Amino acid sequence: MSADAAPTSDIVTAAVLVIGDEILSGRTKDKNIGWIADHCTAIGIQLREVRIVQDVEEDVVAAVNALRARYSYVFTTGGIGPTHDDITADCIAKAFGVGIDVDQRALDLLLPYYKASGREITPGRLRMARIPFGAELIENKVSVAPGFMLGNVITMAGVPNIMQAMLDAVTPILKTGKKMLSKAIDLNHPEGAISEIFRAHQALFPDVPMGSYPSQRDGKPVTQLVLRCTDNLRLEEAAAGLAEKLRERGLY
Amino acid sequence: MSADAAPTSDIVTAAVLVIGDEILSGRTKDKNIGWIADHCTAIGIQLREVRIVQDVEEDVVAAVNALRARYSYVFTTGGIGPTHDDITADCIAKAFGVGIDVDQRALDLLLPYYKASGREITPGRLRMARIPFGAELIENKVSVAPGFMLGNVITMAGVPNIMQAMLDAVTPILKTGKKMLSKAIDLNHPEGAISEIFRAHQALFPDVPMGSYPSQRDGKPVTQLVLRCTDNLRLEEAAAGLAEKLRERGLY
Repeated sequence: MSADAAPTSDIVTAAVLVIGDEILSGRTKDKNIGWIADHCTAIGIQLREVRIVQDVEEDVVAAVNALRARYSYVFTTGGIGPTHDDITADCIAKAFGVGIDVDQRALDLLLPYYKASGREITPGRLRMARIPFGAELIENKVSVAPGFMLGNVITMAGVPNIMQAMLDAVTPILKTGKKMLSKAIDLNHPEGAISEIFRAHQALFPDVPMGSYPSQRDGKPVTQLVLRCTDNLRLEEAAAGLAEKLRERGLY
Repeated sequence: MSADAAPTSDIVTAAVLVIGDEILSGRTKDKNIGWIADHCTAIGIQLREVRIVQDVEEDVVAAVNALRARYSYVFTTGGIGPTHDDITADCIAKAFGVGIDVDQRALDLLLPYYKASGREITPGRLRMARIPFGAELIENKVSVAPGFMLGNVITMAGVPNIMQAMLDAVTPILKTGKKMLSKAIDLNHPEGAISEIFRAHQALFPDVPMGSYPSQRDGKPVTQLVLRCTDNLRLEEAAAGLAEKLRERGLY
């Protein structure tokens, strides 16, 4: 499998491209973005962008090409089933300017499965064996129909448990970078009470991105401050310094 | 409020732009996309694209400009709080090439609220009154801090209950089009069993987009076919025709 697209630095980035009218109509609620985000963070890949687009060839091709040029990896979900609205494989082939046809390796996975389960080999099912030229298959144990990786683009199913199996299957061959570590500080105060201390502390640690996330607990405003860095010592230093400043003001 | 950007046709489109590192890291799971998708479908706006980007000015500005040029409306969520990582209002001003400053109308909302609750008017809190020149405020009863609408871009909070209040507040002034209606047919069969009938039926009704959504029930593959159209008679005709063809083959 080609790793040409992976950068040589310590930072490995990714984007997710969700393909599916059903997410945009609201009929189906996406469960894959959050899963892939957690997975990327856990293995040392920084998810930088997500797009959800319609089942429209031109939109999918444009998004694939925009994202694969910018990030180390692009994970796509959805649109690789047997029906006419499953256009992802053809879109990936078009985005890369390569051909696509029924693939013998994919047939070798699918035919014994259908034979064993007594299911007919319909043209639709054969369609799931269509793989862009040059792609490597990504097997999955749930539905047998494979995903694939072409260049830096990883094409997976939209059904969550199948997507998860494919993500696990492809992970060992992905290049990963330093893991982004994080530390959270939970405060029983609204954001507005800490914004100046927090801004000044961020200015002292420009290499440790800090975010503030307000919510409510028992009807009262609370805030979670999150500090992120790939260097654990630096992260600890920034977090301890912030906690001290907040304690001095009676805010922590 | 300007409605210049709204199209004159029956179709009103939208995109969602989620701004926030915390969604991309996986720490926070987005709940706004699905909510806005449902809301748009219910009121007759077609959600066509979603992007999630980092808290990086250049990325936010580029996404705002790409999306506002293409769709009737852009809904943004996140990044309008009091802390340094809240950069959305400044990004919107930059995207439109207009100035931004503390807005008297926003102050008139915020100051009495802070006074009544005994909270200090910190520089961070004043920051929430920074509104791009030319924007209309979108009030919300949950946090008081307003969202705003500039041109066809609607900027809302990221906290779900505040976002929902803002979405309700802005809805009466949005132009809406014909509602996209849908009809679902649930089958106790895998997609592969119906793909040919389904493809042929789609070809007969090119104006009725049809999607197939596989899942599992009690460990067995099931499929939901969804037909969509703004014309109810046409939708009924397409759905009844498909149901009949499936029944003839013993699939429904």
